[in-house]
Amino acid sequence: MKLFTVGPVACYPIVLKAMGEQMYSHRSAEYKKLHYDTVERLQKWLETQNPIYLFSSTGTGFMEAAVRNCVKDSMLACVNGDFGKRFAEVGKSNGRKVEVLEPIIGEPITPQGLDDALRKHPQVEAVAITHNETSAGLINPLPELCAVSKKHGKLIFVDAVSSMGGTEILVDKWGIDICFSSSQKCFGVPPGLGIGSVSKRCLEIAEKLPNRGYYFDLILWQKDHEKGQGTPVTSVIPQVAGLSAVLKMVEEKGGKKWYFDLYKRRNTKIRRAVKKLGTPVYPKRGYESPTVNCIKAPKGVPGPQIYEAMRKKGYELAQGYGALKDVTYRIGNMGYIPNQSLNSMLETLKQVYDEI
Amino acid sequence: MKLFTVGPVACYPIVLKAMGEQMYSHRSAEYKKLHYDTVERLQKWLETQNPIYLFSSTGTGFMEAAVRNCVKDSMLACVNGDFGKRFAEVGKSNGRKVEVLEPIIGEPITPQGLDDALRKHPQVEAVAITHNETSAGLINPLPELCAVSKKHGKLIFVDAVSSMGGTEILVDKWGIDICFSSSQKCFGVPPGLGIGSVSKRCLEIAEKLPNRGYYFDLILWQKDHEKGQGTPVTSVIPQVAGLSAVLKMVEEKGGKKWYFDLYKRRNTKIRRAVKKLGTPVYPKRGYESPTVNCIKAPKGVPGPQIYEAMRKKGYELAQGYGALKDVTYRIGNMGYIPNQSLNSMLETLKQVYDEI
Repeated sequence: MKLFTVGPVACYPIVLKAMGEQMYSHRSAEYKKLHYDTVERLQKWLETQNPIYLFSSTGTGFMEAAVRNCVKDSMLACVNGDFGKRFAEVGKSNGRKVEVLEPIIGEPITPQGLDDALRKHPQVEAVAITHNETSAGLINPLPELCAVSKKHGKLIFVDAVSSMGGTEILVDKWGIDICFSSSQKCFGVPPGLGIGSVSKRCLEIAEKLPNRGYYFDLILWQKDHEKGQGTPVTSVIPQVAGLSAVLKMVEEKGGKKWYFDLYKRRNTKIRRAVKKLGTPVYPKRGYESPTVNCIKAPKGVPGPQIYEAMRKKGYELAQGYGALKDVTYRIGNMGYIPNQSLNSMLETLKQVYDEI
Repeated sequence: MKLFTVGPVACYPIVLKAMGEQMYSHRSAEYKKLHYDTVERLQKWLETQNPIYLFSSTGTGFMEAAVRNCVKDSMLACVNGDFGKRFAEVGKSNGRKVEVLEPIIGEPITPQGLDDALRKHPQVEAVAITHNETSAGLINPLPELCAVSKKHGKLIFVDAVSSMGGTEILVDKWGIDICFSSSQKCFGVPPGLGIGSVSKRCLEIAEKLPNRGYYFDLILWQKDHEKGQGTPVTSVIPQVAGLSAVLKMVEEKGGKKWYFDLYKRRNTKIRRAVKKLGTPVYPKRGYESPTVNCIKAPKGVPGPQIYEAMRKKGYELAQGYGALKDVTYRIGNMGYIPNQSLNSMLETLKQVYDEI
């Protein structure tokens, strides 16, 4: 089965090789070297001086960490789809008041919309933004949204789960306080590892906030990060080794620009092909995701039918998600996608369109 | 390097092979089949009807889940070492009052001691017990402690991180409400996966308890477990596949009894050898752990010196932990230890003793 999923995505052979290596202690010198080398490569990638923690959890762990450590009473969640909804839920399930800014599906959060929302709810302490909303295949104008949040003095939490690695994110320049992702998306590593940068401002707030819990207590993570311990709980060593392998590969090939260009080239090919088939991508023009294509299903054909037909032919795309399940299907552009697989997938998609 | 660590431990070759397989969606039929097959094998192993969740976290995630979902005000933590202390910390960091029962190091929790503590603190809602305390190489008399807790009507949380898989645990018979472990211990799988059974009584309490958070919300886990979804967040697929491989292997070789016997045989060999060298194991007689040997260092020799000398010769044991760091060293008996490695390790240990 060839994967064009939205995560877990197909992994590079060098990553899978690293995943199958024999284990060793997470307190050994070998692991510590791997850990801090990986952290430094990520800091360079995101152009940040902030510490980066490697959580033994998925990216969602960082939502919980952001809320429990940095929000005392209330936050604003920008919702473009199911993952924005999840951030709002994480806030509520931790007893915080959550204001919601939710444009109609397929539309981005606009700087004006965010500015209005923050004027309406001046009491919120933080703004949660999904950079790339996987469920709608939409990317938000993150630098502009960060600028608006900063102007209002709010903390900025960015769910970059399906964007980090696949498109530029400049953590320090844009002033992002918590920027997190998961291993199983653009880096093409199996799931289980959360990756996130945390600002000094967040740590200062956390220090004074009681009831932060243990597993995602940022103060604990920072202490062990500073001590040279890496992680307070056992590290997900194989996934860290896999991430290290892919970061080294990218560096050898020419750095993150090479990787972003690869994503762009692949995605342009996918977009052109589906446009030629007469089915445009779902979100508003100019906000189409570089990593996940959410495509309108042909008239009268349920999206899941395209998904199933492709699956029978050996290609695992992704079904529409949530409210868009029936009217769309998705083609992921993340992880290990050899050119030949991409070409044959697009040819097969044409066949499927012809047959239905 | 040959591993006799206390976790992450060395993994069986079949596990490492499974870890290196290509990824696929955690919402696919393939994953769901793997998930529920693994859950059923674990239920059979633990002889329980309770649901088992496969957390995308280490075992510590279940400590957080137990406290946030099932303890309203206060709990009793039985502390035999650093992992018991961690459970107490998890309670406190989540704003609960934690009473502590802490015998001197190397001594077990006794049924009488627990009974006294529960009479003294009748208000506690739950008792947290570390079955096998890795840091002291000590195993507690779990069935007896469960009986006492039950008599007092308390919930029972068992940290079975370094015992599940290596020695018998009968969840339903002993009445354990939450019994959890981690992949990187007795099952010999890399870290990143938490394994835990949860009783109906816990779920009933959780349902009424607000502010449970999201990542470890047992109600969310139960809903997805019942729906046939497996997990609410992305599953740590490689580690689940690794666990499945080892459970199948054990079944083919004769079931859990075969595995327990293997652990016993290996450990008897280790104990005899260190006794012959004149250095007994640390804990009180009758309470020596079947999975981790905490060994008194020879007189006048710091434990870390033995550890370092063995490391130079290609054997990774474990250093003493916490308060016992200087006066002990540890030999793990978990995961993949071929007979030949065990024999050569013991011969090398004798050499090291002769040389110091």
